[in-house]
Order: sequence, then structure tokens, then C-alpha cells
Amino acid sequence: MRTLYHFPLHPASRQARIALAEKKLKIREEVIDPWNPSDEFLDMTAEGAPPVFVDVISGGTITISGVRAICEYANDGSTRLPLLSDHAFERAEARRICAWFETRFSEDVDSYILSEKVEKTVTGLGAPETAVLREGREHLQFHLTYLTWLLERRDWLAGNQFSLGDIAGAGHISCLDFLGEMKWRDWPAVKDWYQRIKSRPSMRGVLNDRVPGFRAPRHYTDLDF
Amino acid sequence: MRTLYHFPLHPASRQARIALAEKKLKIREEVIDPWNPSDEFLDMTAEGAPPVFVDVISGGTITISGVRAICEYANDGSTRLPLLSDHAFERAEARRICAWFETRFSEDVDSYILSEKVEKTVTGLGAPETAVLREGREHLQFHLTYLTWLLERRDWLAGNQFSLGDIAGAGHISCLDFLGEMKWRDWPAVKDWYQRIKSRPSMRGVLNDRVPGFRAPRHYTDLDF
Repeated sequence: MRTLYHFPLHPASRQARIALAEKKLKIREEVIDPWNPSDEFLDMTAEGAPPVFVDVISGGTITISGVRAICEYANDGSTRLPLLSDHAFERAEARRICAWFETRFSEDVDSYILSEKVEKTVTGLGAPETAVLREGREHLQFHLTYLTWLLERRDWLAGNQFSLGDIAGAGHISCLDFLGEMKWRDWPAVKDWYQRIKSRPSMRGVLNDRVPGFRAPRHYTDLDF
Repeated sequence: MRTLYHFPLHPASRQARIALAEKKLKIREEVIDPWNPSDEFLDMTAEGAPPVFVDVISGGTITISGVRAICEYANDGSTRLPLLSDHAFERAEARRICAWFETRFSEDVDSYILSEKVEKTVTGLGAPETAVLREGREHLQFHLTYLTWLLERRDWLAGNQFSLGDIAGAGHISCLDFLGEMKWRDWPAVKDWYQRIKSRPSMRGVLNDRVPGFRAPRHYTDLDF
């Protein structure tokens, strides 16, 4: 059976889960602790980190490592339910947005807020530092302003069609929302987009996540928040 | 005319140049100082950094930002001279290798060696710090060991076919070679691969780069080094 190795509060892992669910691929999910992966998992991937997808193909299995490879692989698998537009510019925009989330957003926001709240909790390194969280939140405001600017001009992050760009956004924003970091009142355009994202069946797994040591705010699962 | 905005000693910019050259696209190149970009350039891209590709299409131009979007866009443009394999696994491997260079290699090696040698020279911040360079070089050894492991099993970085994965490698390794950081004697498998890379016509631009304030070692342009 196809298996995705992932960690629930990990934006890259979430993107892989959402992309595979968008393509209606039935998979088994196995949780990996990114800070203490098993030897068995490390043997599977040079990256040493989730997400890793093991697909069953004729004659055996293949192992696909990393969010970028998995999302493109999921989309490449069939032309049904495409996650990239037919239009070259929208396709390029989707990949630009993915890269933006994976580098800029990740460095400026996740490496402050997720590191403090998630990594410290899971690894038992104590309480988050307020100054670090504050800095991450300032960067988040800045980046939500950019997403607002985009969403005031387009239906979806990369253009007129739901795409890998939106999946990238959903992976990151849903983690921050789980941690109570999204002040939705202040971001109506992003909220409108995220409401549409949340109502997609591909989000069900992510919205049903329970993670020991964490309690999501009540609105997290609410489609009408 | 198609224009690529780039910086010569910038791995991401080099990848864009090589990918566009592989697809035999005639382009005009314009150098951007990443640490002091013009307002005109900043108006073109939310990323605020090269590479940025402005393509001429029927009815106008489109602007493609970032190495990932540009390389995939170049490849998507025609099925001739493909930069990704027909095989799903090799395609996934190519994208994994690209992500590995853009995140892991970049964080562990470029942000030490290129930051110290290139950024400091261009921005006038003084001489590189030996301790930082030393750390970057240690990481480089570690990562060249991994590339050796791959190249002992495959003709090219992602499999049996030249791909975007090799272009990612060429972008990074050629910058380090320009700076005299590649001790080729110690890395025969990587050297064999890089010899094949250097002999490709798409590398001509990169090998002919002259950058004020820098002088490449004599072997840099040599195809038989």
C-alpha cells in the first residue's frame, strides 16, 4: 500500500498530504518524529526528514522524498484533477509561490513560531521565548499583507485556478492556525481564501489532526470560522 | 526580446541561465546586484532578487521569478530537449536534487562560503572570516561525499539522463569552482560529472563570466582540468 511518512505540524508534510488527497490517491499515513526519526526511516531517505512517499508501482515500490518532488509527482501521475494550470504563466506563478513559502515564509515565520512552539514542545526544550515569537509574528503580518495583495487580484494564490501554490499556502497557514497564530479578523482576504481551502475534501485529514501536547483553538476545524 | 536578470556568482541565477541555454532560447542577459537592486528591478518582482525572466509572448510579456519557476517554465515551453525524464521516478529525483541544492546545500555551504567571499566583496564588508570559510568547507566535503555516492550509481545526478538536477548542481558547483573552492583531486566521481557538464554548450556563458573584484583559477574555463 502507498505510504506517506509525515509529521502533523509540519507544513511540508501537510502539503504532501493535501496534494495526494487532491489527486484522490488512497494512502496509509505514518507519523515520523522529525527530531528523532527511526533508523528504518533514515535508511529510506537521504533527506532524513519527512515528507517521504513510498508509491507502489508495477514490479515494486519507489521512494519520493521531499515536498517539491512529492507534489509534482502526485500531479504528474494523471491529468485528472490537475494541480497546475494549463497556462504557462499560472504554472510558473504556482511554482514561484511554492518556492516563496518553502524559503522566505519558512525562514521568516516558521523558523520562529513553529520552532519555538512545536520543536520545543516535542523535544522537551521548554517554553517558547516571547521575543522570538514576537519577531515571527511581525514577519507573519508582513507576509500576510503580501498574500492579501495577491488575493485581492486573483481567486487563488497563483491565478484563477486552485494549484500547488494554494496547497503550499494551506500547509503553512493551517499549521499556524492550529497553533492559534492566525488573527483572522485582521486578514479578510486571506480568510476568504482559507475558508474555500478548508471546505475542500483534501483538507479533512489535516483538519482532523490531533497532536499530543497541543490543543488547537475551537475555530480550527470550523468551516465557517 | 527575452531578458534574464541575473547575478554571475549566484547559483540560482546560473541555473536559470543554463536551463534557458539548454532549451536553445535566445535571451538578453542583464546583471543585477542582489545587494543593491534598482527600483526598476524591484518593481518587477515580489522576490526582490534574481533570477527573473521576462518572456515575450503573443500580446505582451510575462515575468517569471525565481529559479524553480524559471527552470520548470523553460522545460515546459517545448518537448524538444527535455530537462526532465519521461520516467516518473527520475523526474521526482531531479526535483528532489533541486530542492536539496536550494535548501540543504545552500544553507550549509553557500551561506558560509559564498556569503563570505562574494557578498562581502561586492558590498565592501571586508575580508572573509577564516573560521566561517572553514566551517563551510567542512560541510562541502560532507555534501560532495553524498554527490559521489550518487554518481557512483548513476550517470547523472537524478538518473540516466541529464536533468534539472544536474543544472542545479552545475549552478552551485561552478560558483564554488570559480572561487577556487573545488579540490578536484579529492573528488574523482564529481570531477568526471563536472567535466561532462562543462563540455555542454549551455555552460559557455557561465564559463566565460568575468566578475569585477574576482579572478577565477586558471582551470575554471578548462574543459580538461
